[in-house]
Amino acid sequence: MNFSKKFNCCPLSLLGDFIPTYSMRVVMKSCLLCLLVLVIDGAAVFGQKTKVIKGAVLIDGTGAPPIPESVLVIRDGKLVAVGPAGHVAIPDGSEEIDARGKFIIPGMMDANVHLFRDVSIEFIARYEDRLEELIEEGAQISLKYGVTTVFDSWGPLRPLMNVRDRINKGEIPGSRVFVAGNIVGLSGPFGRSFNAVGKWIAPKEFVERINAMFEEGTGTRLSWLPPEQVGQEIRTYIGLGIDFLKYAVSGHDCKGCSGFPETLDLSSVLLFTPEAQKAMVHEAHRAGIIAQTHTTSVESLRQAVEAGVDMLQHGAITGPIPIPESTLELMLEKGIYCAVQPRTAKRLAIEKKDAALFRRSIQVLEAWDGNIRRLIKSGVPLLLATDAGVSNPIKTEVEAGKDVFDVEHPEMLGEAHFIWFRAMIEKGMTPMQAIVAATRNNAAAYGKLDQFGTVEVGKLADLVVLNADPLEDIENTREIHWVIKEGVIVDRESLPVNPLLTKP
Amino acid sequence: MNFSKKFNCCPLSLLGDFIPTYSMRVVMKSCLLCLLVLVIDGAAVFGQKTKVIKGAVLIDGTGAPPIPESVLVIRDGKLVAVGPAGHVAIPDGSEEIDARGKFIIPGMMDANVHLFRDVSIEFIARYEDRLEELIEEGAQISLKYGVTTVFDSWGPLRPLMNVRDRINKGEIPGSRVFVAGNIVGLSGPFGRSFNAVGKWIAPKEFVERINAMFEEGTGTRLSWLPPEQVGQEIRTYIGLGIDFLKYAVSGHDCKGCSGFPETLDLSSVLLFTPEAQKAMVHEAHRAGIIAQTHTTSVESLRQAVEAGVDMLQHGAITGPIPIPESTLELMLEKGIYCAVQPRTAKRLAIEKKDAALFRRSIQVLEAWDGNIRRLIKSGVPLLLATDAGVSNPIKTEVEAGKDVFDVEHPEMLGEAHFIWFRAMIEKGMTPMQAIVAATRNNAAAYGKLDQFGTVEVGKLADLVVLNADPLEDIENTREIHWVIKEGVIVDRESLPVNPLLTKP
Amino acid sequence: MNFSKKFNCCPLSLLGDFIPTYSMRVVMKSCLLCLLVLVIDGAAVFGQKTKVIKGAVLIDGTGAPPIPESVLVIRDGKLVAVGPAGHVAIPDGSEEIDARGKFIIPGMMDANVHLFRDVSIEFIARYEDRLEELIEEGAQISLKYGVTTVFDSWGPLRPLMNVRDRINKGEIPGSRVFVAGNIVGLSGPFGRSFNAVGKWIAPKEFVERINAMFEEGTGTRLSWLPPEQVGQEIRTYIGLGIDFLKYAVSGHDCKGCSGFPETLDLSSVLLFTPEAQKAMVHEAHRAGIIAQTHTTSVESLRQAVEAGVDMLQHGAITGPIPIPESTLELMLEKGIYCAVQPRTAKRLAIEKKDAALFRRSIQVLEAWDGNIRRLIKSGVPLLLATDAGVSNPIKTEVEAGKDVFDVEHPEMLGEAHFIWFRAMIEKGMTPMQAIVAATRNNAAAYGKLDQFGTVEVGKLADLVVLNADPLEDIENTREIHWVIKEGVIVDRESLPVNPLLTKP
Amino acid sequence: MNFSKKFNCCPLSLLGDFIPTYSMRVVMKSCLLCLLVLVIDGAAVFGQKTKVIKGAVLIDGTGAPPIPESVLVIRDGKLVAVGPAGHVAIPDGSEEIDARGKFIIPGMMDANVHLFRDVSIEFIARYEDRLEELIEEGAQISLKYGVTTVFDSWGPLRPLMNVRDRINKGEIPGSRVFVAGNIVGLSGPFGRSFNAVGKWIAPKEFVERINAMFEEGTGTRLSWLPPEQVGQEIRTYIGLGIDFLKYAVSGHDCKGCSGFPETLDLSSVLLFTPEAQKAMVHEAHRAGIIAQTHTTSVESLRQAVEAGVDMLQHGAITGPIPIPESTLELMLEKGIYCAVQPRTAKRLAIEKKDAALFRRSIQVLEAWDGNIRRLIKSGVPLLLATDAGVSNPIKTEVEAGKDVFDVEHPEMLGEAHFIWFRAMIEKGMTPMQAIVAATRNNAAAYGKLDQFGTVEVGKLADLVVLNADPLEDIENTREIHWVIKEGVIVDRESLPVNPLLTKP
Repeated sequence: MNFSKKFNCCPLSLLGDFIPTYSMRVVMKSCLLCLLVLVIDGAAVFGQKTKVIKGAVLIDGTGAPPIPESVLVIRDGKLVAVGPAGHVAIPDGSEEIDARGKFIIPGMMDANVHLFRDVSIEFIARYEDRLEELIEEGAQISLKYGVTTVFDSWGPLRPLMNVRDRINKGEIPGSRVFVAGNIVGLSGPFGRSFNAVGKWIAPKEFVERINAMFEEGTGTRLSWLPPEQVGQEIRTYIGLGIDFLKYAVSGHDCKGCSGFPETLDLSSVLLFTPEAQKAMVHEAHRAGIIAQTHTTSVESLRQAVEAGVDMLQHGAITGPIPIPESTLELMLEKGIYCAVQPRTAKRLAIEKKDAALFRRSIQVLEAWDGNIRRLIKSGVPLLLATDAGVSNPIKTEVEAGKDVFDVEHPEMLGEAHFIWFRAMIEKGMTPMQAIVAATRNNAAAYGKLDQFGTVEVGKLADLVVLNADPLEDIENTREIHWVIKEGVIVDRESLPVNPLLTKP
Repeated sequence: MNFSKKFNCCPLSLLGDFIPTYSMRVVMKSCLLCLLVLVIDGAAVFGQKTKVIKGAVLIDGTGAPPIPESVLVIRDGKLVAVGPAGHVAIPDGSEEIDARGKFIIPGMMDANVHLFRDVSIEFIARYEDRLEELIEEGAQISLKYGVTTVFDSWGPLRPLMNVRDRINKGEIPGSRVFVAGNIVGLSGPFGRSFNAVGKWIAPKEFVERINAMFEEGTGTRLSWLPPEQVGQEIRTYIGLGIDFLKYAVSGHDCKGCSGFPETLDLSSVLLFTPEAQKAMVHEAHRAGIIAQTHTTSVESLRQAVEAGVDMLQHGAITGPIPIPESTLELMLEKGIYCAVQPRTAKRLAIEKKDAALFRRSIQVLEAWDGNIRRLIKSGVPLLLATDAGVSNPIKTEVEAGKDVFDVEHPEMLGEAHFIWFRAMIEKGMTPMQAIVAATRNNAAAYGKLDQFGTVEVGKLADLVVLNADPLEDIENTREIHWVIKEGVIVDRESLPVNPLLTKP
Repeated sequence: MNFSKKFNCCPLSLLGDFIPTYSMRVVMKSCLLCLLVLVIDGAAVFGQKTKVIKGAVLIDGTGAPPIPESVLVIRDGKLVAVGPAGHVAIPDGSEEIDARGKFIIPGMMDANVHLFRDVSIEFIARYEDRLEELIEEGAQISLKYGVTTVFDSWGPLRPLMNVRDRINKGEIPGSRVFVAGNIVGLSGPFGRSFNAVGKWIAPKEFVERINAMFEEGTGTRLSWLPPEQVGQEIRTYIGLGIDFLKYAVSGHDCKGCSGFPETLDLSSVLLFTPEAQKAMVHEAHRAGIIAQTHTTSVESLRQAVEAGVDMLQHGAITGPIPIPESTLELMLEKGIYCAVQPRTAKRLAIEKKDAALFRRSIQVLEAWDGNIRRLIKSGVPLLLATDAGVSNPIKTEVEAGKDVFDVEHPEMLGEAHFIWFRAMIEKGMTPMQAIVAATRNNAAAYGKLDQFGTVEVGKLADLVVLNADPLEDIENTREIHWVIKEGVIVDRESLPVNPLLTKP
Repeated sequence: MNFSKKFNCCPLSLLGDFIPTYSMRVVMKSCLLCLLVLVIDGAAVFGQKTKVIKGAVLIDGTGAPPIPESVLVIRDGKLVAVGPAGHVAIPDGSEEIDARGKFIIPGMMDANVHLFRDVSIEFIARYEDRLEELIEEGAQISLKYGVTTVFDSWGPLRPLMNVRDRINKGEIPGSRVFVAGNIVGLSGPFGRSFNAVGKWIAPKEFVERINAMFEEGTGTRLSWLPPEQVGQEIRTYIGLGIDFLKYAVSGHDCKGCSGFPETLDLSSVLLFTPEAQKAMVHEAHRAGIIAQTHTTSVESLRQAVEAGVDMLQHGAITGPIPIPESTLELMLEKGIYCAVQPRTAKRLAIEKKDAALFRRSIQVLEAWDGNIRRLIKSGVPLLLATDAGVSNPIKTEVEAGKDVFDVEHPEMLGEAHFIWFRAMIEKGMTPMQAIVAATRNNAAAYGKLDQFGTVEVGKLADLVVLNADPLEDIENTREIHWVIKEGVIVDRESLPVNPLLTKP
């Protein structure tokens, strides 16, 4: 049933029973004559009253067995009752939606995105004044493909927070965004952590302005400081309004040196002492936010775990050395969450073959892959996390004549989470585990499980309604019927609203 | 007297006697209620009727002695009568303007500007979509300081033509612009002629797009072709709508390699055979436009003269070798116009001292200076020409801690022509010669003397009205009372309308 | 039969019937008991008695039909009689050598070698003090494989002349060497013509010293000068002792920028005016030496021909544009010699496929190949010329995993001339034409036909004695039985004497 | 009195009363008539008889008050008795040397030299086959100026050990050398720690060969490994024959990127975890050698102290942050030795002014200077250490027009230790403290105090005999009368024997 075709004007008679979509809200605000406007284009309609979604198979994100015929009651954007048909009372006057034949999973989550991520001089100069537009575009592409929450773990803090706040206020559509800003300890884009050559070539004033915007006082300078001062700086930084703290235990390779033949390999160096790390974790916890890390070697991984962080980004990337068994055990013991970014078998073969293009050695790729397989077996709670963004390095591959879909590109926003599922199933996860990693675990790792992440009473009604069973074939997560965020059906067709990088 | 304060609304009673300024026209268009609007801010008022400017000392640009008390009669933007008081009949009903104590010279002209001129990746990426705004800003800054006509001898052709056309149609204010587009034979910005490193570093797609926009098919590729094919390519290029043809006899140094320590010195190489040069000159003349050259060595200079071009850009720049006497004689014999870009003594000392910063050797600077002095003595007709633009390389000097005014910067649009006067007087020109070089000679060199360039009957009424005598002290050209373009007083205060690079 | 193995001591009793090899002479010099030392005045001497080589098929290099059973009489290093058996009187007391079943061709010649040719910082720094050793090694490898004369058309002049003189005096073995020194107009190794990045990176003092050694005052500076001064500089340069003059009409690509991703393409620019070129040719002819050119475009080629040079190096390389018919006709009309460097079909396919590695576009490769085919048909006298050296760019290919033999490398000294034969036969030459190109034409082009180049009376006895018929299969030029230089059999096994770059 | 001038032949009659110089020994060896050859087992031997040096003021290196009129008895290269005149028995038949008016200090020691230290492509390529000659030159220059022992704390291990062994065996003259080889954790010359651009530009094979030679398996790869594996690698490395272990706690700036405008700042990153550091220290101590560190930040300094190392190289260099008081206290508590490299006031002013040339910020320079002043006051035992070498970076300054003497260059071997004295006195040390830092402390820090370092009974007779009192003016350390190493007077005039870098 397609509501949008049925009601493409202002049908006052239907006003009682719909939930306005994001795009509708915009229309509503600007239209003085319409008092109530209907859903348009590819969406069912919910309303002011309590809503009930009936009959779908429910996979609630907790890992529990599916409920074959479920009833979900939604009020004010939240789930007020969830259970098998016959066990849930349907409030009088509710609007009832027939979802038989559908499959419901929680809104998906990505523990590691970069809504802005290109560090070439050309890109940053071009978009310096339009960063928020780019970020909006990223958040809207994510939402379109069922990712209702993203955690942006590196990017320009203030533009990110502005977009985050606009989305939260409902001013614009988009995935719910949580932001880290800088990865504490790394340089801005034009420095040793990203594009060292950019620093030589670009005008000094520009370099300094951009770096300052990204670093927000938490750049390489912090490596110079004793632990107490690091703690103080972090306290100030948290005060700016970040949602979670990410710091770099090890360095970041400078591979963005566009056009230059050599990577500056800093993946094995450490940026902070254990004492400084503990000071940072302490500050995060005091402020009630989680701390996570960038690690890229077995020693940085171990230090991160020992420092007491709550979760690990790309914990399976450890250079040429596999994770020692003792570190795996420590992770399990601490119950630490670990985000992983797998490659599909096809992708892995490509990256091995074109190692020079991807600037990773075969040894590193193999250790990485082996680590993920061992992590799956170990029982360490894993998280869907993709490192995805809208632009480069996809551009690099496109310039080299690659088809990003054919190469199963793992870092293209809107596609990356599906590729993640495919890769993890290949490596031994069950579909149920994969869904939990994408939903419950993500919320839990970020300390948000009380608010969302599963389809349980009291949580926000973030749902993805599928046309086919994802437990049978994880590729069915692509068969999206509706994306529902806080009880509102997303007008997917309208996203992104102002395509800049993805305009056809 | 300040009209703008007095009449800040629609004073219908004054409607009869003013010539609306450029900025006023804009206001008029957007104001449905106002039928006629007054001059604003620092300007006298002209009207629909014939205007007469009386009493000023007239330096008419021909080199003739000044007329101590002149009468100029202007109708429809043109001069209909010019002469000493008492010798010119003042039409009945004319509006008479009292200009006693003022000095009138023709609108100044600059034979060599680049309204766009920065070739860093950062600058071009940032402004790629706003090139026309930059070009407008440049044309408006020029006009503000009395340069009523500029010849843009290198830049992005289509944006330049668009701005040119908008100015000519009166849609926006600005100096009258004539454009060459590419310097035939040179690469686009990201190539051997300008920023070779930019070509390595920037994304390929961007490099190719920008280079194509600047080259318009007349880049380095033309050096490969036999003369006939060069001729054909040039015919096509002229057909795009250029106003004059400029080709490179010798190459252009790659000094824009921002941040890199070495200049790639191509000033001494030749890009075309004599036969190919003649083919290009032939095509220009057949199309009724002049041909001019970029030369940077004594041999390229000689070849240009022998090829039959109409004028020479920066003819005094000949590397470390002074112009041979025989070449000077040939220039004189052919009556060829020669644009020169002098340095003041103060500036020359700075450039010698900071040779590394300016990437010119002392030997080159000295040959250049000596050539200008000899050219002045020789009688070769010289042209005011500055190479000026709005942005870099001034930025470079500013980053190195220089004050552009204190260093008598010769390439800053709006200031450059005054510095030119100062430098040429220092080197032996008389003020009268300098004014002729800036006006009559420029128009003559470009084949426009029938239209403008002097204060003579039949020409456009492009005038600069000064408060002090420029023949007494050439610095008095800065003492601008009014700039008049085609009989309309320019609202100088309002320029540039939308400052981008020069916003405070 | 191998003389060097048979007589490795001072066998006085055998003195009558042997031709001492180079290595024997060394033995003889150091042997206090030997009374008979035969080296006189830079020429090898043919035992005491007249020698007669009888019975071989003679291909004399003139293009005449082979003499099936020939007699060659050699005295004092020269041919004193040549003809069919029965038509040549054998002097009494001659030593007679039976060469039945063999094939004699003149000593081969290469019109374009670079006994030194690597322009990386690393190579030049390493060998700066041993340049002559490298050059000797090159000359000895050439001789070993039947090339009795090489024309070194770019390299460090003084070391080259020293080696040349030592070889000519018979102090060391090696091909006869004629040297040009610098290609007039090009920079030294660390400059725009070769390794521009080397200039940035290497210590200034080193850069300047090396460039000065290669340029010998004839570098890029000459492009600045008027024709008369160019002539004067060239006169001075010729006075240093060069054997022929080579100047660059067009520039040289900077592809030696080791490790950098971009070529600096200067192949289409011109370095001299026609007048300056004529001045240089005039000076060469006045000094009794030939003038030749470096050209890389159709226009530079045409200018070279018009300037009156005697021969053209790599005349078939004209960038993306085929040689115009009119230029071909002019070459024919002037009887100008043209050296060409062909690629075999196999090699051409490789270079097209790996265009990025070889830094030549497919269009350029195709024009080049087509030009050679047309030149063969045209009747323009062609020359074997290889651009060969001992080291790089072979190193580059080896680093990229190529087998230099498998890829039919055309620029590896000792192998290159055989590859040249193969390629030219593929493109339409007959074996006889190929042999003439390698012998008679080369001598004629360099003005040395009165001294050597064919097997004719009065010429130096430079011979290659083959075991199989080269007219049947040009590959049989590899079946070398003896290399004879000035009547002396070369001890091929001992060459190169001190292998530096080619040590196993 | 100059022995070497007096006895330049084999005067048997004088054999009783001379100390043969190094050059004398060479003469003696080649003299068939001399029966008396005295060199035994790597140690120079003091004639046949016991020697006595009488009458000099003795500053014995322990910090004790000078002995105004001392007697030193030397036998077999060692001190057998030392004391005030009248308190020391002079053995019968001793040779007595009158040293009244002289001042004796122990042979000086430098805790941080690099006998090889230039990382440009050009330098390494040039000298790759002659590294040992360069190292010999360095060791001989040191000895010439009174430094009898040097600790080479970074350089190519095997060539260094070869030279070390030749000196120890008495085959060649030179300072006693102790070697560390690589600084564990740093890359070879062509990598991120020194010349990153060299890695891009130079041929791959060369880069890999040179890096392998310097790294000896202890390069950046070790940062990837867990502590146990680091320990194993270090055990292997120690087995190669190093004299002391040096590891990098923090990274090394890449400032050797000759010609490139940017430093790659890695001074603040850490290369090893505390656990890995402890594993390395453990291995050193197990092997009976000391462990020392490269630190460049306050955090790396603290970690080094906590890891239990025996001494700190350039412990005062801590980036922009002064050493925290708590770290100073910890150093004192542990009795750790700290090598410092001060700048004189004059030099500091120059480096501040030319910060760009020296690639150190003013803030870093000031923290450095302040740290040294505080260290002097603190009582932490300090060591003379200079980082000196023979070549670059002096070359850089010379190219920039500096006079190395006028700028009080602190890293020029042969001069650096005198500059160190001057600087430390300026900052508050007494001359006595400075001499102890140069002698006793150095030996103690390296665990060699039982063998040398002071003028005490049982130690090697390494002495510098001065003509003026160094306690009165530290500059008097330059007034060298004799340098005595193991009882043998050094023929200073003959050093260095084969000057390569310092040839006039």
